[in-house]
Amino acid sequence: MKATIVTIGDEILIGQIVDTNSGFIAKSLDRIGVEIHEMISISDSKQHILDTLAQLQNQVDLVIITGGLGPTKDDITKKTLCEYFGDTLVVNKDVEAHVIDLIERVMNRPASQMNKDQALVPSQCTVLHNKVGTAPGMWMKKENTVFISLPGVPYEMKYLVENEIIPKVIKEYKRPYIIHKTILTYGQGESLVAERIENWENNLPEFIKLAYLPSPGKVRLRLSARGTDKEFLEKKIEENVISLTKIIGDIIVGFEDSDTIEVVLGRLLTQQKKTLATAESCTGGKIAQVLTAVAGASNYFKGSVVSYATETKISVLGLSEALVKEHSVVSAQVAKEMAIAIKRLMKTDYAIATTGNAGPSKGDENAEIGTVFIALATPNEVIVEEFNFGQPREKVIDRTVNKGLEMLQKEILKNLL
Amino acid sequence: MKATIVTIGDEILIGQIVDTNSGFIAKSLDRIGVEIHEMISISDSKQHILDTLAQLQNQVDLVIITGGLGPTKDDITKKTLCEYFGDTLVVNKDVEAHVIDLIERVMNRPASQMNKDQALVPSQCTVLHNKVGTAPGMWMKKENTVFISLPGVPYEMKYLVENEIIPKVIKEYKRPYIIHKTILTYGQGESLVAERIENWENNLPEFIKLAYLPSPGKVRLRLSARGTDKEFLEKKIEENVISLTKIIGDIIVGFEDSDTIEVVLGRLLTQQKKTLATAESCTGGKIAQVLTAVAGASNYFKGSVVSYATETKISVLGLSEALVKEHSVVSAQVAKEMAIAIKRLMKTDYAIATTGNAGPSKGDENAEIGTVFIALATPNEVIVEEFNFGQPREKVIDRTVNKGLEMLQKEILKNLL
Repeated sequence: MKATIVTIGDEILIGQIVDTNSGFIAKSLDRIGVEIHEMISISDSKQHILDTLAQLQNQVDLVIITGGLGPTKDDITKKTLCEYFGDTLVVNKDVEAHVIDLIERVMNRPASQMNKDQALVPSQCTVLHNKVGTAPGMWMKKENTVFISLPGVPYEMKYLVENEIIPKVIKEYKRPYIIHKTILTYGQGESLVAERIENWENNLPEFIKLAYLPSPGKVRLRLSARGTDKEFLEKKIEENVISLTKIIGDIIVGFEDSDTIEVVLGRLLTQQKKTLATAESCTGGKIAQVLTAVAGASNYFKGSVVSYATETKISVLGLSEALVKEHSVVSAQVAKEMAIAIKRLMKTDYAIATTGNAGPSKGDENAEIGTVFIALATPNEVIVEEFNFGQPREKVIDRTVNKGLEMLQKEILKNLL
Repeated sequence: MKATIVTIGDEILIGQIVDTNSGFIAKSLDRIGVEIHEMISISDSKQHILDTLAQLQNQVDLVIITGGLGPTKDDITKKTLCEYFGDTLVVNKDVEAHVIDLIERVMNRPASQMNKDQALVPSQCTVLHNKVGTAPGMWMKKENTVFISLPGVPYEMKYLVENEIIPKVIKEYKRPYIIHKTILTYGQGESLVAERIENWENNLPEFIKLAYLPSPGKVRLRLSARGTDKEFLEKKIEENVISLTKIIGDIIVGFEDSDTIEVVLGRLLTQQKKTLATAESCTGGKIAQVLTAVAGASNYFKGSVVSYATETKISVLGLSEALVKEHSVVSAQVAKEMAIAIKRLMKTDYAIATTGNAGPSKGDENAEIGTVFIALATPNEVIVEEFNFGQPREKVIDRTVNKGLEMLQKEILKNLL
């Protein structure tokens, strides 16, 4: 069973907004065994929409369309669908009552004709009731393909996918199983990891696919198995993960998507009842932000001082001006003193400190662009490492964040062994 | 001149990652007058790639492909392009020298055969040198269409778009002008705005297109004009914006271009020679992180205290324990005192402070999930606002970051008038 997701809207094609709807729909369908064939973004143009519908007709089982269902002139999806199906628009009384209720009760003003027109739907369509907005979803079948039209507003789209589309697809279609398993590795590049697991990769069964998902400082390996026997697929994935762990167990830090290093670290710190603080210069608060994006971070994360200006390192962290002058602000000594200071200030077990030059220009520091010092204060000592993370700025920041978290994780794991 | 952007990668089709590359490429091309016809995401499958290339052949002038250029087995773009062009892979000596240098000098280990194979390119291609990574970009022409292949790692893709593709497209193609102007309105819904400007919209000239971009609480109106006479287009857009302002001036709060709020704020603060600090609780350092992701932030951003734990608010920011106890940590009073404290501590002109409950659970505070207080300290006063940003956690954090920056921007703009 295959589906293609179509997004309608010039705002996507000119890069004004990023389409996050397609990813949500894809993940929801993948979970119930529907394969996504393609995602396509097209313009708010009648001919372009008609051409796309015709092209997808009978190529896939499901076409899910988002966008262009609003009340204004540039919203042409409904009319165009009607034209494609040779249908006419009729008032759906349930939708009309809902729209009037929503506008008058929630917005507290009379519903206009433009509002009421939201209740016009093609006569053949099955209405997918949108409890959280005014534009209904529509489900229409032609030959072997079902076309589903959804509003582009993310929370309305999500509501309809979760409450209307997924249950209806499960009920009406027979689907295979798709099992994914993601293994998160740290500290080695994509090609090095690939070399280490070459034999293992060559021996994977035909129905298991391996993908490498590299990002600065880490590589995720994703295994995907597809078939009709769910238990068999899960067993085979499990076996291969075990044999993989025997080869690269030293760099595996977790499994599945939600197992990012900050989640794993959070779990370790909570288990160990240890606390953490950060003093951040070149990372500008990103380590704190990444840590606090995890629910429950208040169990172990006490806070951070983002000492972006040199004077903040002196006034808030209490570093000595002479030390900063002597070694320069981007130095092992300053990183070390920052880690000691924040650990003391926030009374934590661990502290991570960063100082470096993320570029793009050299600034007042003499440090080369990409030079970063990371200090890790533990209950017993302070470890400082120097790196050059190259360019651009974004990469230097991300690699520093990942490396800092990795240094802490290694330290905690070392103490557990 | 038309382009289609193709993203290759199963990780996008299963919803594991959101494709942000296409938006960046679209925005860059749109700016120089290239119209984006479609964006397509397809799987890591040879046949799917070949079919897509054949379908796009002569349909558009440019096809920009990202992804599938890594060194590992699942990276098949290069071989597939070669097959489509009936070409063979040859070693490019410049790329080989660059790859070896990057691996040996930066990564400090010998380059493997897998690394060196990154220097293999189709013999007919023009290499786009990738200074920030190992996978080169490739530019290949067949009949009326140029196919450009880029690595999917965002900063490598960005480097090649900015430094290689845009200059080459400007040099080699004649393009029309595309002028956009976005008007940001607050406080009225899409259909209400549409009703108010109906006459104005009906009188827009043919070559100016209007789009409504609604999101909770605000509607952006985007005017797009396309033609060969840049000055004429700019004049016409300007005239229509002026007449629009006469109709809905009461709800227009700004003219947002592609600049993010942190970039605009950075420019304003630099021009005004003003400085900023943040004290962050529920945002966990994300305001600092967003600000410092902009190059040159050290001109105006002094730093942040991420006072995630209540005790940090007391020990580092110096809030009174009695005040926190009396009003609770999620309160207008605490937000206000945090803003005052950080402004004094970092000696800045402005300060933003956040405290709230981002969820998912209620925690020790009594505050409802989604409740957030944002305080803005200016040279003269402290403004505190209360919000409920609902759920989930991620949305609460992001909306708090945006709202905090927006409050500051409004304040600075108000003083400029």
